[in-house]
Amino acid sequence: MKTENQALHWRYATKGFNPEKKVPEEKLKEILETARMAPTSYGLQPFHVTVVKDQALREKLKPFSWNQAQITDCSHLVVFQSRIRIDEKLVNDYIELISKTRGVPVATLEGFRGMMLSTAAKEPGSATSQEWAKRQAYIAMGFLLHSAAMHEVDACPIEGIDGAEYDRLLGADAKGLQTVVVVALGHRAESDAYQNLKKVRQPVEQFFSFV
Amino acid sequence: MKTENQALHWRYATKGFNPEKKVPEEKLKEILETARMAPTSYGLQPFHVTVVKDQALREKLKPFSWNQAQITDCSHLVVFQSRIRIDEKLVNDYIELISKTRGVPVATLEGFRGMMLSTAAKEPGSATSQEWAKRQAYIAMGFLLHSAAMHEVDACPIEGIDGAEYDRLLGADAKGLQTVVVVALGHRAESDAYQNLKKVRQPVEQFFSFV
Repeated sequence: MKTENQALHWRYATKGFNPEKKVPEEKLKEILETARMAPTSYGLQPFHVTVVKDQALREKLKPFSWNQAQITDCSHLVVFQSRIRIDEKLVNDYIELISKTRGVPVATLEGFRGMMLSTAAKEPGSATSQEWAKRQAYIAMGFLLHSAAMHEVDACPIEGIDGAEYDRLLGADAKGLQTVVVVALGHRAESDAYQNLKKVRQPVEQFFSFV
Repeated sequence: MKTENQALHWRYATKGFNPEKKVPEEKLKEILETARMAPTSYGLQPFHVTVVKDQALREKLKPFSWNQAQITDCSHLVVFQSRIRIDEKLVNDYIELISKTRGVPVATLEGFRGMMLSTAAKEPGSATSQEWAKRQAYIAMGFLLHSAAMHEVDACPIEGIDGAEYDRLLGADAKGLQTVVVVALGHRAESDAYQNLKKVRQPVEQFFSFV
């Protein structure tokens, strides 16, 4: 197994996947689980993850992804979809979940509920609120990408998609979701030249300040 | 060493840090490095990471963080700051960096440069552009948080800060940066009751769809 640093140098935004090489279900499950376990503001998890394996559906998504081959050649396409409205219902459902998980009465969570209603759920559907929800999804994407590298599974995060068309094809609107970003998971093709390029990162002394 | 899943159950948004227990420099370096190695759109890394160890400065930041004790009790406070303007200079600097790192002439990167100018750097300083930069920082935060858990270092991501005051105290404006989110790193206090609470997450069948 690679060290963390080796894994992060090994990974790259994979352009050419080997379509024959699928990610084993058990490994996929472990990687996906990190997105579910990722922290979010208040723990609200204002997003959903749709994993697309179906080849016909991926063929339909491809033209709305700049025709990138990763969409159809990867093993699994992971679609991050944020909640459009952060509202009282979402907060109440979450309070119920806490109550059930921890075995505490809902009444004892009233202060926490009120705090979320006056902050995170203050303006359901506003631009600020939508952006906040999208950013939470990006934390989970970070977990998933870091995890994939550690598991030696290749990944390509893709922002260049037509979110509205993804929403239509995945029926996101009816669930109150909007597509934010996708990650193609799988295994690199030997022929993908990008794997041989030296990784480009800002030098430590530019990227960090220490005070 | 914990398995990934054990680490993700072990971690929690630490409220009470042990102020005496610092993260060893070597371990800190490894965790921070994951933020630098994290992928970003085009690889542009449109953000900066400021690590605040100085106690006096953290005392000043505390009132602009809802007086949360983590700010001063943690070992290191990691501040994510995104670039306000994604402009031609940033793109050109990046092209120079690629050229230098990979030993290829700048001229061969002209197509890539043009693509970034017409997309990521199309509207420097616009709301959309600023949000895009912030989201990139969140990917890196995801890497750092996942890594910290694997290294058994405690962390608390904190969005509840007055970014403008952070900018002022850290001199961010002069660098074209704005504070987005912070992570307190350190080690939990034995007395922090939050560590004993059962983790609350949406059940698998609600959080994921498989198609």
